[in-house]
Amino acid sequence: MTTHSTPLSDLEIAANATMQPIVNIAKAAGIDEDALEPYGRYKAKIDPAKLNAPSKNGKVVLVTAISPTPAGEGKSTVTVGLADAFHQLNKNVMVALREPSLGPVMGVKGGATGGGYAQVLPMEDINLHFTGDLHAITAANNALSAFIDNHIHQGNVLNVDPRRIIWKRVMDLNDRALRNVIVGLGGPAQGMPREDGFDITVASEIMAIFCLATSLEDLQNRIANIVFGYNFAREPLFVKDLGVEGALTLLLKDAFKPNLVQTIEGTPAIIHGGPFANIAHGCNSIVATQTARKLADIVVTEAGFGSDLGAEKFMNIKARQGGFKPDAVVIVATVRALKMHGGVAKNNLKEENVEALQAGIENLAKHVDTVRQFGAEPVVALNRFITDTEAELATILAWCASEGVRIARTNVWEQGGKGGIELAEKVLEVIEAGNNFAQLYDVEQSIEQKVTTIVQKVYGGDGVHFTEKAKKQIAQIEQFGWDVLPICMAKSQYSLTDDPTRLGRPTGFTITVREVIPKLGAGFLVCLTGDIMTMPGLPKEPAALRMGVNEEGKAVGLF
Amino acid sequence: MTTHSTPLSDLEIAANATMQPIVNIAKAAGIDEDALEPYGRYKAKIDPAKLNAPSKNGKVVLVTAISPTPAGEGKSTVTVGLADAFHQLNKNVMVALREPSLGPVMGVKGGATGGGYAQVLPMEDINLHFTGDLHAITAANNALSAFIDNHIHQGNVLNVDPRRIIWKRVMDLNDRALRNVIVGLGGPAQGMPREDGFDITVASEIMAIFCLATSLEDLQNRIANIVFGYNFAREPLFVKDLGVEGALTLLLKDAFKPNLVQTIEGTPAIIHGGPFANIAHGCNSIVATQTARKLADIVVTEAGFGSDLGAEKFMNIKARQGGFKPDAVVIVATVRALKMHGGVAKNNLKEENVEALQAGIENLAKHVDTVRQFGAEPVVALNRFITDTEAELATILAWCASEGVRIARTNVWEQGGKGGIELAEKVLEVIEAGNNFAQLYDVEQSIEQKVTTIVQKVYGGDGVHFTEKAKKQIAQIEQFGWDVLPICMAKSQYSLTDDPTRLGRPTGFTITVREVIPKLGAGFLVCLTGDIMTMPGLPKEPAALRMGVNEEGKAVGLF
Repeated sequence: MTTHSTPLSDLEIAANATMQPIVNIAKAAGIDEDALEPYGRYKAKIDPAKLNAPSKNGKVVLVTAISPTPAGEGKSTVTVGLADAFHQLNKNVMVALREPSLGPVMGVKGGATGGGYAQVLPMEDINLHFTGDLHAITAANNALSAFIDNHIHQGNVLNVDPRRIIWKRVMDLNDRALRNVIVGLGGPAQGMPREDGFDITVASEIMAIFCLATSLEDLQNRIANIVFGYNFAREPLFVKDLGVEGALTLLLKDAFKPNLVQTIEGTPAIIHGGPFANIAHGCNSIVATQTARKLADIVVTEAGFGSDLGAEKFMNIKARQGGFKPDAVVIVATVRALKMHGGVAKNNLKEENVEALQAGIENLAKHVDTVRQFGAEPVVALNRFITDTEAELATILAWCASEGVRIARTNVWEQGGKGGIELAEKVLEVIEAGNNFAQLYDVEQSIEQKVTTIVQKVYGGDGVHFTEKAKKQIAQIEQFGWDVLPICMAKSQYSLTDDPTRLGRPTGFTITVREVIPKLGAGFLVCLTGDIMTMPGLPKEPAALRMGVNEEGKAVGLF
Repeated sequence: MTTHSTPLSDLEIAANATMQPIVNIAKAAGIDEDALEPYGRYKAKIDPAKLNAPSKNGKVVLVTAISPTPAGEGKSTVTVGLADAFHQLNKNVMVALREPSLGPVMGVKGGATGGGYAQVLPMEDINLHFTGDLHAITAANNALSAFIDNHIHQGNVLNVDPRRIIWKRVMDLNDRALRNVIVGLGGPAQGMPREDGFDITVASEIMAIFCLATSLEDLQNRIANIVFGYNFAREPLFVKDLGVEGALTLLLKDAFKPNLVQTIEGTPAIIHGGPFANIAHGCNSIVATQTARKLADIVVTEAGFGSDLGAEKFMNIKARQGGFKPDAVVIVATVRALKMHGGVAKNNLKEENVEALQAGIENLAKHVDTVRQFGAEPVVALNRFITDTEAELATILAWCASEGVRIARTNVWEQGGKGGIELAEKVLEVIEAGNNFAQLYDVEQSIEQKVTTIVQKVYGGDGVHFTEKAKKQIAQIEQFGWDVLPICMAKSQYSLTDDPTRLGRPTGFTITVREVIPKLGAGFLVCLTGDIMTMPGLPKEPAALRMGVNEEGKAVGLF
């Protein structure tokens, strides 16, 4: 049973685990030696161009969750544990995850590689710099900013309007002081003063492009098509106008190769790309998923936060651009989190409360409904905690039975793959049954139609309110013919609405879209809702305060 | 003979070279397999703690140069070629270099790994992200900035005065628009507005600490002792007051291991740390040099720009903190560059001009004099170009003979190690003869005395003028007892004075120190002179415009 009273931290469990050399993991996964570039003993990059065997066209299992709460759901943990369960069942399986961002690692989370006995290793490397992919993305993003400002400073042949540059700088940190800045101060030798701001790297368009490009050539074409701003005649300006798409691609070429690691149980894991799911599209790279599908019969992957965020974008954006579909969808839920959705305060979660649970199940019900909207049949993974009571478990099981929803109890945090066998078996049933997956909207529809579809079918809301600013932006986007793209909603992860305080399954609400930003390189239109921030801040006591290096040069304080 | 009319670029020569697997290079260098962490096939990190053999206490050959000119001197090329020459002479040798910064690579230089047949490989990796060390340093530096701003935002228990924060953010790019910025705009939820600025990563104190620390423990202690600003009572505030030295050390722990690569001729090369020599101390890391000294009988290393910059700091800072000495010093010179010092314009360098050369030799004379000031006997490496005439060569040889200066012609760009044999033999003579190396000043002397010593003995100037601001800073530094540290001069590389237009060997000048900045973590005091910038800008046509990736995924446009 999952318990947080265990004496070992995730980092300690990870440190005690025995890893296999990555060359062994690769060999077992059918990766040719020629296609493997080791980074240390336990990490490697895979060159997909050098994988010679025909693709297995692996089935895709997407792991999503109910709306997250401070109680924690354990989605990454279940994702890893489910893959380990398939591994124990002798299935040919790989797990495909996102790369952690240093921002949350240093800020609140401390680590993002699963937990307990369902982790990917080497945990401390993956949570820190890993193979440098995020740094390469940061460098490419900020090189573009430097090229833009230099272009203006050196005569501004393109007539870039410094007030209409939409390309922002990035930092892979939580740093609220960089949200709004003025750059170029200090006189004529120091560039042109203008307003600017920094997003976190995982929210950047380069990260989105990195995760959606299907080849290095596609990567370069997408970079060339980034709109970085407008000239004084309000015409769009592209990266290709600056002629630096080659240099930016060069900065990304090695990072673009997927990273191979392993779970505690030796299941091969690909970890590549890491956009946040609230402010970006929330899925690992297409090249990683496709590499895993080439090598394995089953690919377990996750999308960030609840099904209203990562999973919706997985289906409407990633699957559409990648040309595949989810063959099964797992929704992770916990008794604790559902009780919070039913109104219980965080400090009272240990007490049995069937009534609140019953109310909170509404949130799960909406996520089940959402998955079914896409023509897929979900399996609920009930991630067990030691405080769950029999009455509470019975309540959830009864609800699932009444709705005809498959449910499996998981306990992978404590048991590893063994704790996910029941879930794996139910997922196999769903895969076997097949589905009629379809995207919820057609890109040819109007922006308003597409956003309304997401709000009504996925969030359960009544409709959308566009601010005057958003309306002007939509008019401009339509004028340029950029409206035939999918939508990437930026919305609070905590609520199905754009108000993070409204838990459960709210009804009778509208979503306010305050800005619509074209990301032509990524190939989607970002809709900003509520007061969602594209650069997080640090808490009063950052996780970093606990971190350090011990006498053996090993990390302490990651968890 | 060195020529730039060769049909192959440095990148093409590098791409055509056959590299040995890095594990073979390591084995030949006596590196235990256990101490090696491969990064791809041709790069690796070395864990110095796992090197079990007793140290060879290798002799240190420092390569420096005359004052650089746009004509180019080829210091890195000669450094690599000299190591290859020792290798050809069957000496047990390693070369220790600095890591290139992306700023100059994308800006003007295009690459910084030697040239022709005297290069370190893999050239394109080393010039781009390499093993991520500079990104780790950037992340640690900027994490500290985020922690500082967050501390202020969350209640400011330390009473940090936002006007007196001396810690700046960094970016490993040339980006003039970031020199002076205002951060924290946007209202109370977005942090405290304040003036800030970005330096290039290679100018940061974290880079200096990284290069001067002798162990991970020393690294953490130095980080703890960084002064990041002052409180409202004008008392200094240290990183240890924020309690984040552990987290910052954690971010640096893997980067801190030296990187192993190879030259075109298979000579083992360690490339680690890369502070600029004009705005920082200009030498690769002590841990790299000491690792090379442990493994090899001869270590060839370079310090940036002329002997007034990198070499002066190598001797007065790095050698002092590392506890070793230069056993031989090579001064790289070219006929072309000396003619520029004698007044010839860049476009006229192909024409013979003995008179100008004779005048320009004054610059070489000062660098010879500087090396002798330290009790060392230099060897001049005359790096040949195809345009050099016999009369010009005779002029330099005659001058060296008259001054009793050893000189060797080198042609390593075209011939590799073979073109450096004569130089290697003369260097061996100097090593054999031994020297009476001593630092030029004692750290116990006053700041004014120390700076005056550098100006008079190294630059050949009359004395120092401190601005009122600098005087106030010195008074404060003395008040806190921080004055017993070596000096790190930040000065133009182009002139022995603080005016980049004064070539040759100027006399009768004074140096103006406009600011004195304590770097307690690094363990030196930075003196800013002239209008030296700690963040470069891009030229009108950045080198990036030529860069890209070919169909095989290889770099083009690096040179």
